[in-house]
Amino acid sequence: MSDQNKEIAVGIDIGGTNSRYGIVTGTGEVLKHDRFPTRSYPKAEGFVRAISRKIKDLLKDYEDYTFKGIGIGAPNGNYFRGTIEQAPNLGWKGVIPFVDQFKKYFNERVVLTNDANAAAIGEMMFGGAREMKNFIVITLGTGLGSGLVVNGDLVYGHDGFAGELGHTFVYLDQGRKCGCGRRGCLETYASAQGIKRTVFELMSESVKSSELRNISFSEMTSEHIFHAAKNGDRIAKEAFDITGQYLGMKIADAVVHTSPEAIFLYGGLAKAGNLILNPTIKTFDDHVMNIFKGKVSILSSELNGKQGAILGAAALVWKKRK
Amino acid sequence: MSDQNKEIAVGIDIGGTNSRYGIVTGTGEVLKHDRFPTRSYPKAEGFVRAISRKIKDLLKDYEDYTFKGIGIGAPNGNYFRGTIEQAPNLGWKGVIPFVDQFKKYFNERVVLTNDANAAAIGEMMFGGAREMKNFIVITLGTGLGSGLVVNGDLVYGHDGFAGELGHTFVYLDQGRKCGCGRRGCLETYASAQGIKRTVFELMSESVKSSELRNISFSEMTSEHIFHAAKNGDRIAKEAFDITGQYLGMKIADAVVHTSPEAIFLYGGLAKAGNLILNPTIKTFDDHVMNIFKGKVSILSSELNGKQGAILGAAALVWKKRK
Repeated sequence: MSDQNKEIAVGIDIGGTNSRYGIVTGTGEVLKHDRFPTRSYPKAEGFVRAISRKIKDLLKDYEDYTFKGIGIGAPNGNYFRGTIEQAPNLGWKGVIPFVDQFKKYFNERVVLTNDANAAAIGEMMFGGAREMKNFIVITLGTGLGSGLVVNGDLVYGHDGFAGELGHTFVYLDQGRKCGCGRRGCLETYASAQGIKRTVFELMSESVKSSELRNISFSEMTSEHIFHAAKNGDRIAKEAFDITGQYLGMKIADAVVHTSPEAIFLYGGLAKAGNLILNPTIKTFDDHVMNIFKGKVSILSSELNGKQGAILGAAALVWKKRK
Repeated sequence: MSDQNKEIAVGIDIGGTNSRYGIVTGTGEVLKHDRFPTRSYPKAEGFVRAISRKIKDLLKDYEDYTFKGIGIGAPNGNYFRGTIEQAPNLGWKGVIPFVDQFKKYFNERVVLTNDANAAAIGEMMFGGAREMKNFIVITLGTGLGSGLVVNGDLVYGHDGFAGELGHTFVYLDQGRKCGCGRRGCLETYASAQGIKRTVFELMSESVKSSELRNISFSEMTSEHIFHAAKNGDRIAKEAFDITGQYLGMKIADAVVHTSPEAIFLYGGLAKAGNLILNPTIKTFDDHVMNIFKGKVSILSSELNGKQGAILGAAALVWKKRK
């Protein structure tokens, strides 16, 4: 019965527009996955009812497996309370008892945490951190999320909201305005939105030609910047360099807190590979405190390009907290 | 036998000039304590031999107690390896196998960690963090040290050097030169040396009269600045405000890493009480990320003014790591 090959869990990654879900084996194989339109459901109850029906249908094809439960990664997901709290990018407002709502439809384990924590658990169970006890996963999506693992356990902290590295200060009391209401947060520089802001700053300051000058702020994505940089566009390349410099500096700060063995970059911007990794690693190496030099690897997540968010969410079901 | 009232441990706090040691009960009573001149011993072996003899003499008076072992707090003390490594303020150079050296004289448990980690364990066992599982102790001595506790355990990290918050950046790539070789580290602003540097900066910039203008840089201590501030000296008060502002800002950064319930300030500068606490708390409250607002207390360590360093070191003996 403890044969993880014969166990499955469902992983759900909640996004503002679409959610993704899938069936995952205990060895990290995604047997089936699909999308589900979050935005079509003005109330969380309706969403949970509808996606639960979909999941139950899917599970019928896997009755010779042992179904272990459901793991959910969600913005502002609180592990302790099983709630989604005041998530700015979701249509559902207030504090939503998400786990309780799923429990109406499932008797198995239902676990929820924020999406970056799920990514960290996924990296530990199925990715590059399989042998590690101390590491950090940084998710570079629209914003910057992070999950810290210390001594083999995810750090939740006193109230379940540990690991908000996107909201450390690059500049004290100045710099770019952040969605959190403050100024100078790391995610205003190092994230999909952040690199776009850097591109627009560079376009305003320089007279260099750039294919990015033909795209509006609203339309530009980090994919555009990635492709421009690969084509040799100087503004795009400089934007990646600057993004990596901010990231490398603040990783040097993060490392002195928990002394991790590695930092994994995950998500949209991380898929740019060396364009983002090289300036990050160089700046980190130049600035990290002496006693940590040569001891910390900055790596691309092994879950990039796979169904990483689904894998991470599903991993929650197996990874029990001490 | 598990009656902590009848158990004792020896706590040793290694300092550059003097070390302090004492006999501590399992309930945090310091039965006896003394100083020992570190600097008189050019080699660590000689120091260990001599202080071990002193300790054995002392223990003779407490033979009706169960002696549990020796805890040592030392600059750059490494918990995993039991070594003191490249400590800039000690005369002993290189990597010193300190625990092994004590083991020649004692059969009981000998545990070593850095002084700030010892302070955190002391706070958890005998101080204000007795009921807490997630907190940080910041030691404001010559430098700035820190010990992070997550889920009831001290964070050592991958190589035992976690918790170096004194070496987070106040300014990226600029600001004051730090003993660690970099620029802009928090401890160059928030520490006994840091506040003195601020006083000298203020004296150079302003024409305000100040009793501190009569003291040389070499002679000035944080006690001078404390007494001047209590007398209403404007430069001294401003220096405390600035120190608290830097500290409050960087505590706001630290909090998003591990989500602690409280931050305790310990050591020389922390003894100034509200002079340092008030600006730290105000700046923290003004700048901490919304989801942590009202959830984190910044407090003076309950071990301030007691034999805190000895208590913390002794506590190591009882506090076993999972």
